[in-house]
Amino acid sequence: MTVHFLFCHEIFVVMAQSTSRPRAVVLVSGGMDSAVVLALAREQGFDCYALSVAYGQRHSSELEAAARVSQALTADIDVPEQGGAGIPVTYVPARNTIMLSIALGWAEVLGADEIYCGVNAVDYSGYPDCRPAFIEAFERLGNLATKAGVEGHALHVRAPLMRMSKADIVREGMRLNVDFAATVSCYNADATGRACAHCDACRLRADGFDAAGVSDPTRYV
Amino acid sequence: MTVHFLFCHEIFVVMAQSTSRPRAVVLVSGGMDSAVVLALAREQGFDCYALSVAYGQRHSSELEAAARVSQALTADIDVPEQGGAGIPVTYVPARNTIMLSIALGWAEVLGADEIYCGVNAVDYSGYPDCRPAFIEAFERLGNLATKAGVEGHALHVRAPLMRMSKADIVREGMRLNVDFAATVSCYNADATGRACAHCDACRLRADGFDAAGVSDPTRYV
Repeated sequence: MTVHFLFCHEIFVVMAQSTSRPRAVVLVSGGMDSAVVLALAREQGFDCYALSVAYGQRHSSELEAAARVSQALTADIDVPEQGGAGIPVTYVPARNTIMLSIALGWAEVLGADEIYCGVNAVDYSGYPDCRPAFIEAFERLGNLATKAGVEGHALHVRAPLMRMSKADIVREGMRLNVDFAATVSCYNADATGRACAHCDACRLRADGFDAAGVSDPTRYV
Repeated sequence: MTVHFLFCHEIFVVMAQSTSRPRAVVLVSGGMDSAVVLALAREQGFDCYALSVAYGQRHSSELEAAARVSQALTADIDVPEQGGAGIPVTYVPARNTIMLSIALGWAEVLGADEIYCGVNAVDYSGYPDCRPAFIEAFERLGNLATKAGVEGHALHVRAPLMRMSKADIVREGMRLNVDFAATVSCYNADATGRACAHCDACRLRADGFDAAGVSDPTRYV
């Protein structure tokens, strides 16, 4: 299963390469959830095209560090250290819509009928664009928006982690031999990927590994 | 009615300015259709925020010339000189989806409940993302994707030219005193905005002005 990486600033420059396997575009953030999704899509037999979109995230990661991408979508938002009610202040306006739209364009260029993303409704219930209804609406839109839809072969938007807890995701990653040490979850990670241990993302991750009874390889500052 | 301009590479940096009028984000390409849409949105009383997205278009324009933007979405597509059946080769994968998604993010930051675009199903019937069903699906998605939807105030995506002929659009522009000399329609326009007279866009425009009985101020090479 070949995995191709593409960063947003190069999109539409890379054209389809010949392959006999069906293709899937996979949104990859550098965090643990999308790492599991990528492993799942590979397990399904897809030739995976991983798409990483830099929008000025506060945290770096193995993947993002490799991408010297434009600051096109920089959002100036404070990163909270504690959770709260309602919509988290880490919410970035229309982020998932924009990233899925770019994935949709790439999927069309590649002739891929599958888009995979790590959207999850359990731990991110405060984000409007992490709801099942949002993914369903995007799939419907994608089929109306593109040649694929006009030509009759259906586009699918897959969010296989949608209803999993963080512990479920850890267990699924262990089953798929995901290298969790290569992933970074922290909103405040330093340049080498060391985590702060205090932000929402660090706490969710640590709790998930605890609940799964798995040792977390995260390096802390 | 103040009109604010924003280009894609600056998105999310500009935050809301205080105003008492309701806000609308308007997608502006530099062509005549979106110029009419902007005039219509202003007529409706909205404080208009015009969004121009550069994606490596072959043609330049007054607006695009002002934007030294990233080549983030460059599409390598040949520009045809004659129309044909099916989906035009000038179709850019997921273009309207990506541009509306960026407009959605900006609308959320601004607190705007309106997005205006010049999408038209009559002259662009070959483009899957120019159909009424596409706009309706995007509006539905936008309401699911954003805080506005969660908080109960509806987002509207307006495509007021959807069912107009090019001649109708010319007449509406004349009524609204749109400066058509400032717009560029040609796919192959030179750096000064002079049109080729031969491409699909030039022919559609010329036919529209003819049918409306209006003199077209386009400058040709």
